[in-house]
Amino acid sequence: MAQILDIPALAPGDDVHHPLVVADVDVRGGDHARTTITFSNRTGQIVSAPFWAGRDEMIRGVAKGMLVQVVGKVTAYRDCNQLDAVSVRALPKGSVPLADLVPSVGAVDKYWQFIDEKRAEITAPRLRAVLDLCYADDAFRQQYEACPGSPGTGHHARLGGLLQHTCEVLAIALQISRVAKADIELVIAGVLLHDIGKLECYSWESGAFDTTERGRLVGHVVQGVIMLQRAIAQAASPPCTEAEQLILEHLILSHHGKLEFGSPVKPLTLEAEILHFADDASAKTASIAEAYASREFFPDGAGVSTRKIWQLDGRWMFKSKASFGREPGD
Amino acid sequence: MAQILDIPALAPGDDVHHPLVVADVDVRGGDHARTTITFSNRTGQIVSAPFWAGRDEMIRGVAKGMLVQVVGKVTAYRDCNQLDAVSVRALPKGSVPLADLVPSVGAVDKYWQFIDEKRAEITAPRLRAVLDLCYADDAFRQQYEACPGSPGTGHHARLGGLLQHTCEVLAIALQISRVAKADIELVIAGVLLHDIGKLECYSWESGAFDTTERGRLVGHVVQGVIMLQRAIAQAASPPCTEAEQLILEHLILSHHGKLEFGSPVKPLTLEAEILHFADDASAKTASIAEAYASREFFPDGAGVSTRKIWQLDGRWMFKSKASFGREPGD
Amino acid sequence: MAQILDIPALAPGDDVHHPLVVADVDVRGGDHARTTITFSNRTGQIVSAPFWAGRDEMIRGVAKGMLVQVVGKVTAYRDCNQLDAVSVRALPKGSVPLADLVPSVGAVDKYWQFIDEKRAEITAPRLRAVLDLCYADDAFRQQYEACPGSPGTGHHARLGGLLQHTCEVLAIALQISRVAKADIELVIAGVLLHDIGKLECYSWESGAFDTTERGRLVGHVVQGVIMLQRAIAQAASPPCTEAEQLILEHLILSHHGKLEFGSPVKPLTLEAEILHFADDASAKTASIAEAYASREFFPDGAGVSTRKIWQLDGRWMFKSKASFGREPGD
Amino acid sequence: MAQILDIPALAPGDDVHHPLVVADVDVRGGDHARTTITFSNRTGQIVSAPFWAGRDEMIRGVAKGMLVQVVGKVTAYRDCNQLDAVSVRALPKGSVPLADLVPSVGAVDKYWQFIDEKRAEITAPRLRAVLDLCYADDAFRQQYEACPGSPGTGHHARLGGLLQHTCEVLAIALQISRVAKADIELVIAGVLLHDIGKLECYSWESGAFDTTERGRLVGHVVQGVIMLQRAIAQAASPPCTEAEQLILEHLILSHHGKLEFGSPVKPLTLEAEILHFADDASAKTASIAEAYASREFFPDGAGVSTRKIWQLDGRWMFKSKASFGREPGD
Amino acid sequence: MAQILDIPALAPGDDVHHPLVVADVDVRGGDHARTTITFSNRTGQIVSAPFWAGRDEMIRGVAKGMLVQVVGKVTAYRDCNQLDAVSVRALPKGSVPLADLVPSVGAVDKYWQFIDEKRAEITAPRLRAVLDLCYADDAFRQQYEACPGSPGTGHHARLGGLLQHTCEVLAIALQISRVAKADIELVIAGVLLHDIGKLECYSWESGAFDTTERGRLVGHVVQGVIMLQRAIAQAASPPCTEAEQLILEHLILSHHGKLEFGSPVKPLTLEAEILHFADDASAKTASIAEAYASREFFPDGAGVSTRKIWQLDGRWMFKSKASFGREPGD
Amino acid sequence: MAQILDIPALAPGDDVHHPLVVADVDVRGGDHARTTITFSNRTGQIVSAPFWAGRDEMIRGVAKGMLVQVVGKVTAYRDCNQLDAVSVRALPKGSVPLADLVPSVGAVDKYWQFIDEKRAEITAPRLRAVLDLCYADDAFRQQYEACPGSPGTGHHARLGGLLQHTCEVLAIALQISRVAKADIELVIAGVLLHDIGKLECYSWESGAFDTTERGRLVGHVVQGVIMLQRAIAQAASPPCTEAEQLILEHLILSHHGKLEFGSPVKPLTLEAEILHFADDASAKTASIAEAYASREFFPDGAGVSTRKIWQLDGRWMFKSKASFGREPGD
Repeated sequence: MAQILDIPALAPGDDVHHPLVVADVDVRGGDHARTTITFSNRTGQIVSAPFWAGRDEMIRGVAKGMLVQVVGKVTAYRDCNQLDAVSVRALPKGSVPLADLVPSVGAVDKYWQFIDEKRAEITAPRLRAVLDLCYADDAFRQQYEACPGSPGTGHHARLGGLLQHTCEVLAIALQISRVAKADIELVIAGVLLHDIGKLECYSWESGAFDTTERGRLVGHVVQGVIMLQRAIAQAASPPCTEAEQLILEHLILSHHGKLEFGSPVKPLTLEAEILHFADDASAKTASIAEAYASREFFPDGAGVSTRKIWQLDGRWMFKSKASFGREPGD
Repeated sequence: MAQILDIPALAPGDDVHHPLVVADVDVRGGDHARTTITFSNRTGQIVSAPFWAGRDEMIRGVAKGMLVQVVGKVTAYRDCNQLDAVSVRALPKGSVPLADLVPSVGAVDKYWQFIDEKRAEITAPRLRAVLDLCYADDAFRQQYEACPGSPGTGHHARLGGLLQHTCEVLAIALQISRVAKADIELVIAGVLLHDIGKLECYSWESGAFDTTERGRLVGHVVQGVIMLQRAIAQAASPPCTEAEQLILEHLILSHHGKLEFGSPVKPLTLEAEILHFADDASAKTASIAEAYASREFFPDGAGVSTRKIWQLDGRWMFKSKASFGREPGD
Repeated sequence: MAQILDIPALAPGDDVHHPLVVADVDVRGGDHARTTITFSNRTGQIVSAPFWAGRDEMIRGVAKGMLVQVVGKVTAYRDCNQLDAVSVRALPKGSVPLADLVPSVGAVDKYWQFIDEKRAEITAPRLRAVLDLCYADDAFRQQYEACPGSPGTGHHARLGGLLQHTCEVLAIALQISRVAKADIELVIAGVLLHDIGKLECYSWESGAFDTTERGRLVGHVVQGVIMLQRAIAQAASPPCTEAEQLILEHLILSHHGKLEFGSPVKPLTLEAEILHFADDASAKTASIAEAYASREFFPDGAGVSTRKIWQLDGRWMFKSKASFGREPGD
Repeated sequence: MAQILDIPALAPGDDVHHPLVVADVDVRGGDHARTTITFSNRTGQIVSAPFWAGRDEMIRGVAKGMLVQVVGKVTAYRDCNQLDAVSVRALPKGSVPLADLVPSVGAVDKYWQFIDEKRAEITAPRLRAVLDLCYADDAFRQQYEACPGSPGTGHHARLGGLLQHTCEVLAIALQISRVAKADIELVIAGVLLHDIGKLECYSWESGAFDTTERGRLVGHVVQGVIMLQRAIAQAASPPCTEAEQLILEHLILSHHGKLEFGSPVKPLTLEAEILHFADDASAKTASIAEAYASREFFPDGAGVSTRKIWQLDGRWMFKSKASFGREPGD
Repeated sequence: MAQILDIPALAPGDDVHHPLVVADVDVRGGDHARTTITFSNRTGQIVSAPFWAGRDEMIRGVAKGMLVQVVGKVTAYRDCNQLDAVSVRALPKGSVPLADLVPSVGAVDKYWQFIDEKRAEITAPRLRAVLDLCYADDAFRQQYEACPGSPGTGHHARLGGLLQHTCEVLAIALQISRVAKADIELVIAGVLLHDIGKLECYSWESGAFDTTERGRLVGHVVQGVIMLQRAIAQAASPPCTEAEQLILEHLILSHHGKLEFGSPVKPLTLEAEILHFADDASAKTASIAEAYASREFFPDGAGVSTRKIWQLDGRWMFKSKASFGREPGD
Repeated sequence: MAQILDIPALAPGDDVHHPLVVADVDVRGGDHARTTITFSNRTGQIVSAPFWAGRDEMIRGVAKGMLVQVVGKVTAYRDCNQLDAVSVRALPKGSVPLADLVPSVGAVDKYWQFIDEKRAEITAPRLRAVLDLCYADDAFRQQYEACPGSPGTGHHARLGGLLQHTCEVLAIALQISRVAKADIELVIAGVLLHDIGKLECYSWESGAFDTTERGRLVGHVVQGVIMLQRAIAQAASPPCTEAEQLILEHLILSHHGKLEFGSPVKPLTLEAEILHFADDASAKTASIAEAYASREFFPDGAGVSTRKIWQLDGRWMFKSKASFGREPGD
């Protein structure tokens, strides 16, 4: 149990007896009832051979997000490996460190340092007071530095990804604010608050990233406003005026920029527009950088991606190797 | 001051000295700076001749929603009358009954009776408890029975229009629920809560219907959820579980049916889908009925409307006179 | 041959010698020519192993909609069963009751009772006369009570589904009509006529639901108008005026509500709008109810559907279990 | 009364006592009730000064499409002339030749010659038989050679415009058919039938082009199919098989190419696709040619059109004067 | 002639005898032929009373972009002033400084300094060589520092606006590049080249901003590539490889981000995506800042804009006055 | 090696030792790294069994477009054959004639004859001069007569397909031009130039059709303009004026008709609109004809296609067999 299974390196015939996370359980009813399980750790994931209905006692009680000890053998299935499991046994939560189960951004200190520096530069007392409700709260910080930027296959889908994304948005938004002569302090506040709803819309503690029921039924955009409302309501004294709170709520609500992307209102202030641009720029450029780094899309230094990339509206991306005369390593 | 000015009956040359509401103030800066004011009462509205910049002392301080005593004369301007005002003087708020200033649905008892009857049929204690937070509260009822269904030119744009619309949605939703074997009690709750956000997103007390800043920056869809959250937070004890509250929030949030219509999430439950259909059916059929009744769109029993109707996606509507052999009056 | 094969209960190794319908024949030409056959009965369907080109004498002459006696064995193919047939022999049409071959809504009396009751309430003589052309005709009624609401995987895809759908639309449309003060009799007529085109656009007699060539090349919306025209032309004397007929044609033509959904004209009358809403509400809520009831989408009382549901614009639906304090069984 | 009023040449102060068509009556109810009338003849149109409600006895009974003798004077209104009428008196229908009242394509013989030549080349007996139902019928031909290609401001909006458009579509479709090796005879039939519905969807006899109620509520696409059905039903013996009739119906129904352009089905055969392309090419190039020829869009040999052209999706069109070295007159 | 006419300050009755630019000539043919002229200088613009056809000798030969001496009187027309001209006489080009005729960004040194600093930081010799083709060329620089960012009513529509916009894009793009770890030198090159096509697509020398024929028929996106090709072809020796040139062409071509916004290809490299975001952020935030500063949209410190702003997709923008406790002047 | 392998006729068990083209190499990284190769010749294509990572020495260095000698055996994989290769060895380029490796339109003389005939009819000297830059150049002609109309699965995807497509567009465009009274010579020029960019955007010499990097990053629409610019710049003397060149560039740029189809500008001249229609008509009707002829979509004279056809916007096409009484062979 000491060692992490290197999933991408598995070959047919290899034995498995390792702790793995149940990343997904796919129950199919109807004409050919069966269940398959996707197992994962931080190195990758592998799908089980099907457990046919009636012959699936072994996985009775197994659910998404459980940590299990799996015993089995890798077999080849067409152009994939699959895991033919003979035993799937629950392990106590926490018996394997979370960082072994999912990818992570690594140490988060530099991110906090940047954020706290910018918070400290805010001169408006009521703006600082609002931000302190979250950012001066240790419980909030612990959650925020763990939360992924998205569950599954979106951008920044790593432990700490939300924090990293926040910093990227902050850096970009500050620059646009300077150019556009916007209210920089308000933009900082917008950046720091825009995605707080993700804390209750995503789950990650088990090692299986997922969207919570609240995430599906309310969504992180509106949930952010709910959490801000709640924090302000619970404050000893109102940290800001109602009109000011309204401006902050608008920043959160409009950050997706368009109704069809899930913002119930379009950005109506300069600061809201800036927040939207910076958020989108961080998300899209991170998606490209992740695609460039992925052996799935760009194996062997390919120029054109091997397939369309859905996170990027189905584009075939291109990786330029033009040096323009620079020496390698410049 | 006793009598209401009959605006549609005005002709050039008529004198005006009557109380009117300032329905709109249109300040135009730039190359030809000037202000025009739209005056209204429940019979209609009339636009002033322009007050040119530099010659507009008479309207200093006049703002949307004020009640004013206007003295002037009607003049002809191309294919409209305009009001050439020589005096515009503020009147104390409340010196003219609101019902003289804006159209209204009339007595609201029958609407309350229907709603309260349906509330009483709910057997789920926690659902009733949530609804009581609003519907057993006199302040809420007073606001709710006054609020228009929309500001300006949308459907049910009358005092009490929201209450009337709620009853229409309720009647339709109950029937769809029966057909679809949905959870009828949950649908009732959804109907009664779906538009509560309008109370803080529209203003009407002055006699000039308007959208509040909260209405623009947050919108009534999200505002409904905020108000529900607040009401539950302020209750002596939690009227329902968190999971149940989530279901109610989803009903409110998804009632516009599509992201591009301002719902940040699509309806994901049968009950949410029903609520959306019933809401839309009430709104659209009311818009048609209002167009049919309007002399602007259907003067003199016209068959085809005289112009496109924007509330109905720009359709030219048609009013059938086919009797199919029925006697008039059947 | 007495007993119906329970397809969902089949397991690899099981023997099959049962009557089945040829639900689909998939001939693939080109580089790897082969044919597969989907066999079905009312319990479900199963796909054959491929018959390779040149080795497919056994299925010579087998076509969609044939009733065949199949002898073979069930084998496992990855995550499905498939049927390895060794004999496929045509059976005489009608040798197995249709109700054993396809799902059905069951007894239809209650549906007819509701429809005939509403027809009887119509006071307009010429409207009744038009409806009688269809609804007082036994041949029409026999077809209408059998026709599915849609072929394949749409809503109400069962024998009698069209009749059931008609009743749902009727119930909903009546209620909206009351709320909107529409011409209820005209709405009833619209509901009863709106889908008559399906009788010539779908086929079901063989046990394999399908779209006819007319269904593809003309579509049920326009076909309904053609059938109405024909029925009126063949009547002994004109049952209504030309202007009245036009109103009815418009109801049929516009019932899909939008051009992009296949209505060549948008609803231009209040009654047409109501019909569209009621039709859509019945279709969409039935789709949700069918998804809720399906073990494919909601196995084991799952909260979130196991996959996107294309009939519902690709939504992941959610099944709430909130009781709000009701006792089970309330 | 002998001479046609030259409307574009009118100047303020000119007297009018001429026969004119009532091209439109715009009744405005509501706050400033009044009526304006648009008068026209084949040279152009002019709008009346408003007739105010209560002072409009002179136009009692005047309706769209009436021929009237107008007495009045031209006055200037901002950047338009208007007609200040002192008498508007009905004239007997037909007292002025239709060709003096509306623009026309002129002699139609050459169009008939082309069409009849192509009909004569058809070898398929049943295809000729179907076309003869229309094209060998004198009443049909008389209507068809008068009908405009569109009412109001669309393409080919002239007496005979439909016939001219039909010839253009025919010439283009024949060429595409040759290139695509399509069934040319079927394409000819499709061209000759595709717009027959316009005969009952447009009106022009009065001198005021308009869309009929049938045109609004059913549309010429579906109306074409209805008319074909009727013609075939009334034939002494069926001119073609049902399967063949279906192919022709599909050609008519799909000729707008897309659902959102009013075809309830997309073109599914090669011949239907060709018909759609040829129809669209004739319509769009005619719109451009008409814009090029219009002094409104291209006064004084302008290069860029003076405004966006809505018939061409709001494009600013451009008229090239590049000679590439040709002598003028080449 | 020494003094610039203060157009926004004009009032009816004022005399005009000043040099003005012919900003637009609107010739209307058809039924009421007449011409109106829009006159402008850097303070604003005013429209002439109509010159009726036949009475317009005074403006014979007057064309868009001419500098003219206008004599006339201001008259009131409804809610605008208009200029009743009695003499319109051509002045020699250049007799009034361009900066008196159109708005300008002022001194451009700081913009050049920023750009040249960034150019100097580029280490890739072939990238610098390409940029030098433009940016080391004095003729190019003179044009580039004058060209507006857009003609008419778009963003940065001032002399020097293109240069200012380029700097804004550069500042933003540099920051996104750092965050996304992109090739910063390539991004700088993309920024400096992306809008060079505007030099041949806009005209401004006369004092009337306009789009050239090339601007309409080719567009600045493609024109930029054409100009880059030409510059490289004319260079003494090829400044970069063909593959490198391709990467630069792609940056220019894709900078509008989407096909429907006029880019014939979508951004396929990280650097192209960044350029697109930075360009869009500069354009949109400038549009908001310009709206905020405009007395037309925000007179008298209004919170909500007085009308929809088309440059911002028809949004009603909002100007927050929330101080969050800051002292005025912070 | 003399004989071409008949790929569609292969059956499991067959031996292969034949020259084949590497049509595609699909490298998949990530959790189950492996490579598959698609081999092709003019009869069709077959996919290899996967080469697993670590066991793929045999295909080291094999790249798209290589000509290889393959030794292996055909095996069955579910509903396809696959090729289990035991040796893949590079062959010298050109050792197999290109016409054996890819489909072709056959002899091209008739196409050239038609084009050269039309060129000869052009009277405008400067138009001929421009066309001669390409069409009087042997190198251009050799490339042009080989280039496919599209790479992969689009229309005219055969050697010589571009030339064939050009002739189709020419024939159609000439006819529309006659109907619309357009400048026929200009239209001819537009047709002959519109797709010249494909010469540098597609590659075909190896026997594997592909899109070049220039094809992806610039696209053939813009590339055509670049090539025209270059040809004109390199001419001994300018063959036409700049204004004339602009008109030609616009024809090329706008030939896709809409921004969302990759034209950066919409057609603004009559001739550009005609070119767009003719191009689209040739492309779409060729796609239908190719689908009709394909055993994949229409095996065994099927009426309805066996699946949706993506080249035709996902339509299910229909092949009519209506004879309308013609004798077979008419």
